[in-house]
Amino acid sequence: MALHSGLLRDQACLIVHGPDQPGIVAAVAALVTRNQGNIVSLDQYSSDPVSGDFFQRVVFNRPDLAAAMPAIEADLEKTLAPLGLAWTLTDRSVPKRMAILASTSDHCLLELLWRHRRGELPVTIPMVISNHTNTAEDVRSFGVPFFHVPSSGPDKSAAEAELLKLLDGNVDFVVLARYMQILSPDFLDRVGVPLINIHHSFLPAFIGPAPYRKARERGVKLIGATSHYVTKDLDEGPIIEQDVARVTHAHSAADLQARGAYVERAVLSRAVQWHAEDRVIRHGNHTIVF
Amino acid sequence: MALHSGLLRDQACLIVHGPDQPGIVAAVAALVTRNQGNIVSLDQYSSDPVSGDFFQRVVFNRPDLAAAMPAIEADLEKTLAPLGLAWTLTDRSVPKRMAILASTSDHCLLELLWRHRRGELPVTIPMVISNHTNTAEDVRSFGVPFFHVPSSGPDKSAAEAELLKLLDGNVDFVVLARYMQILSPDFLDRVGVPLINIHHSFLPAFIGPAPYRKARERGVKLIGATSHYVTKDLDEGPIIEQDVARVTHAHSAADLQARGAYVERAVLSRAVQWHAEDRVIRHGNHTIVF
Amino acid sequence: MALHSGLLRDQACLIVHGPDQPGIVAAVAALVTRNQGNIVSLDQYSSDPVSGDFFQRVVFNRPDLAAAMPAIEADLEKTLAPLGLAWTLTDRSVPKRMAILASTSDHCLLELLWRHRRGELPVTIPMVISNHTNTAEDVRSFGVPFFHVPSSGPDKSAAEAELLKLLDGNVDFVVLARYMQILSPDFLDRVGVPLINIHHSFLPAFIGPAPYRKARERGVKLIGATSHYVTKDLDEGPIIEQDVARVTHAHSAADLQARGAYVERAVLSRAVQWHAEDRVIRHGNHTIVF
Amino acid sequence: MALHSGLLRDQACLIVHGPDQPGIVAAVAALVTRNQGNIVSLDQYSSDPVSGDFFQRVVFNRPDLAAAMPAIEADLEKTLAPLGLAWTLTDRSVPKRMAILASTSDHCLLELLWRHRRGELPVTIPMVISNHTNTAEDVRSFGVPFFHVPSSGPDKSAAEAELLKLLDGNVDFVVLARYMQILSPDFLDRVGVPLINIHHSFLPAFIGPAPYRKARERGVKLIGATSHYVTKDLDEGPIIEQDVARVTHAHSAADLQARGAYVERAVLSRAVQWHAEDRVIRHGNHTIVF
Repeated sequence: MALHSGLLRDQACLIVHGPDQPGIVAAVAALVTRNQGNIVSLDQYSSDPVSGDFFQRVVFNRPDLAAAMPAIEADLEKTLAPLGLAWTLTDRSVPKRMAILASTSDHCLLELLWRHRRGELPVTIPMVISNHTNTAEDVRSFGVPFFHVPSSGPDKSAAEAELLKLLDGNVDFVVLARYMQILSPDFLDRVGVPLINIHHSFLPAFIGPAPYRKARERGVKLIGATSHYVTKDLDEGPIIEQDVARVTHAHSAADLQARGAYVERAVLSRAVQWHAEDRVIRHGNHTIVF
Repeated sequence: MALHSGLLRDQACLIVHGPDQPGIVAAVAALVTRNQGNIVSLDQYSSDPVSGDFFQRVVFNRPDLAAAMPAIEADLEKTLAPLGLAWTLTDRSVPKRMAILASTSDHCLLELLWRHRRGELPVTIPMVISNHTNTAEDVRSFGVPFFHVPSSGPDKSAAEAELLKLLDGNVDFVVLARYMQILSPDFLDRVGVPLINIHHSFLPAFIGPAPYRKARERGVKLIGATSHYVTKDLDEGPIIEQDVARVTHAHSAADLQARGAYVERAVLSRAVQWHAEDRVIRHGNHTIVF
Repeated sequence: MALHSGLLRDQACLIVHGPDQPGIVAAVAALVTRNQGNIVSLDQYSSDPVSGDFFQRVVFNRPDLAAAMPAIEADLEKTLAPLGLAWTLTDRSVPKRMAILASTSDHCLLELLWRHRRGELPVTIPMVISNHTNTAEDVRSFGVPFFHVPSSGPDKSAAEAELLKLLDGNVDFVVLARYMQILSPDFLDRVGVPLINIHHSFLPAFIGPAPYRKARERGVKLIGATSHYVTKDLDEGPIIEQDVARVTHAHSAADLQARGAYVERAVLSRAVQWHAEDRVIRHGNHTIVF
Repeated sequence: MALHSGLLRDQACLIVHGPDQPGIVAAVAALVTRNQGNIVSLDQYSSDPVSGDFFQRVVFNRPDLAAAMPAIEADLEKTLAPLGLAWTLTDRSVPKRMAILASTSDHCLLELLWRHRRGELPVTIPMVISNHTNTAEDVRSFGVPFFHVPSSGPDKSAAEAELLKLLDGNVDFVVLARYMQILSPDFLDRVGVPLINIHHSFLPAFIGPAPYRKARERGVKLIGATSHYVTKDLDEGPIIEQDVARVTHAHSAADLQARGAYVERAVLSRAVQWHAEDRVIRHGNHTIVF
């Protein structure tokens, strides 16, 4: 679990993605081997062996990885481009930079900060941004900078401009930890990094606001939470992870919300960890999770 | 678990339902006591202690119950009617009569027949009706009559008339065990007994046909099943029970269907058992499950 | 969920326990009614309707409860003592006082402090005591006093004496939140309040130290956690709650420990909440959990 | 899910196992490619990248597989033997032959027969053997031969000799579907194929007879089931799969047994399916499950 420890030094993660065809696994494995890599784990998926899409995640150890990265990347380009395959290679000793956007609720926010402090999330957290100030002291007690960007009134453009200024160039992805503002399409166009959201229902049930109230009204026997990448279609982005908890007729909407909080923080944490570990590949409106 | 055994002889189940008010529990408990009953279990729920709805299920033992039923019923009427409370009293030695409607799929049908044979469902099964014949031999091997009522063509009125003729007076409730026909409002008006359905999704997600295909298209990470009472609004009736199973990007729609079958049969079986044990009280579009 | 709010003002919890016999429910319900109480919830269990043990938990609202308590208690004594029934009556506006004992691990400790701050645990926390100092700052940031009682060397008598001095008269129960010291029989005799422990395995599997290492060695496919009352027999006390998480061949003992932490904190939190809400009745080496 | 369909024609499953070393994945992938195979799925695990044990399962399509098997096997021997790696290659169009041993309980037995009929288990079932006759008619209704081998008295040698005569040469593995007889070490020495058992507890809790009674006595809040390979140490063999179900103080030992039956049949079915699909690799007293 010591994700920041020396064990990940000289460890690379390679993602390969493109049209399936015979010999990809052999080509990639040979490439790793001739670049002095030792494969630690390997996952693959093909949407269809015949003319489907192929996805692969390979983790390998390689002494002096940082120095070797340019040569490996050149080899990847030379080997995989002719096959029409896209690839990304990451040095696992370099943590991703994760910003967290929050509102008044603290359950998802604190869970991420605490898991990070335990060394379970391979990220740095350069900033938490909230449109409220109630969590500032807690956030800073974890040694993480807190910025307050209020978001009142119907025109969010000033707030979004301030968000962009803070995020620009400083982060690799953004987590919306129960951030109760809808981000504009313009913001999403300009932010330039993936955003991960937690929706407090089992999507596609109860899209939109007040899902716990709707769940109570429908009389469901399970409530859920869904973590997904943010797209311009609200609550319609690719799902990364979901989970549920059992409820009964005796639970009020407030009870559902209280119980749901524990599902939300668990689901979001798993989605964030998997994203940070390069386990999630987006494919249209789906995700491949290795 | 010997639900048909002598243990349930002389055991009654009383359901009380109406406007909440102080003293109901005391009034009911006193009534049971003065009628020589010994309370075995008691559940209650109030939607709101102040001007809410009150629901209670009391199971009690009473020697010579059958002979005492008229007197207990008279006492219930005298005691509860003035409080505006409705009630039903059932003798638990009398099993409910359950018809099963099925199509080609056998997983829900066989599960119910098998659980019944094990003595886990306190019902008799006077008939299984299917619009196909493939399950006839299996059904009859359980000693249960099988009737074939075909349902081809857009006009279902002849088929529904035949169903009504078979069911009329012979059953206390009907289970749709993956019966792939939509029953008309007219049929529902005339059938006169509750119907329990199993929908192969986590409602309200994926209402209507082909939920596994829709689930695959949306890229969900859990699939579900929902058992509910049938109303004229398709897939909108009061939910009795739901459950889910985990799936991944690697599962095709056919895989979801195969995995979902195990969730469907478990969810439907629980809903049927609870209904048969008088544990489910309908309240508007909700259920109270004790 | 606002457990400290006015909703619990004038709400009482009555536990009744003793030999089962006809009429108990009626007697208790009548007692509540004649003392102007309105029953909000009622649970009961009988180990056997014939000469078994009877357990009941009744929650009722009663205006001016505090003033009425002596009269209700006198009525309870007069009504229930002749039946051989024991009872406890608690005013739910009075939180229980909970001490937490911890060592270096923070996951159970912080979860309890955080749930308490959210208003989900109906307790006050007069103190956290640890044999290490690493969590002091976190604890105090929740506004909770922290005491350091070191426990090195084989002779724990001085440390235990200091624990007793801190706890004596100040707490209603003690939670061992991964407190890695074995308390002596003498301490348990003298502490005078219940202690709740969390064991990091699915008891009775892997009793004693290093359960995750043992689980890894045995090759189990699920790991678990168990919360129980502390007795003189290590890991043998009455179980309050258990849960599990799925693991695979690929998880090291350290991975099991990391995953298990999330099960431990959830299981302990539920056990503590149920105890604090008077939902748990000890009966020999069993618990009744309403 | 059409496991017997043409989709598996010309599909091979290769298991590789031995000391970890750089280049294994590349060597295996190259071998598959040069033998005209197209990798469909690939899983691997290393107990330790440095001097650990390596395990790999590769599924690949290869036109005219049956004809090519000898050449592929020769290539495997030439390629992997020098690396100290063991391998097995199976043609997935050839189902494994599975015998089932049962006693009076039918829940595990019927579940396996029914899953097989649905096409979910890639096996043939040449025989069911029971020491009782109550399930004979059910078994034969699935078109499966039933043999009665009584097993009364302390001396099981005659019964075991008859079992061996029936099994010898006719089966690839044996499933003990709640077979309530302990097989002798001598039988295990001579049977020559793997045996899969279902134990009705969450091992290593409640080893030996009457686990539900022991679970009730200990007051656990979850019951479980464990499927494992049979070794001479009773209930100590390598675990393939486990699962649990929630129970309460209100459940008798008979209730635990009834609920546990559903866990048992699910756990055993998964273990059997995974074994039949060559997903389970034994390694000492552990299993690798891909």
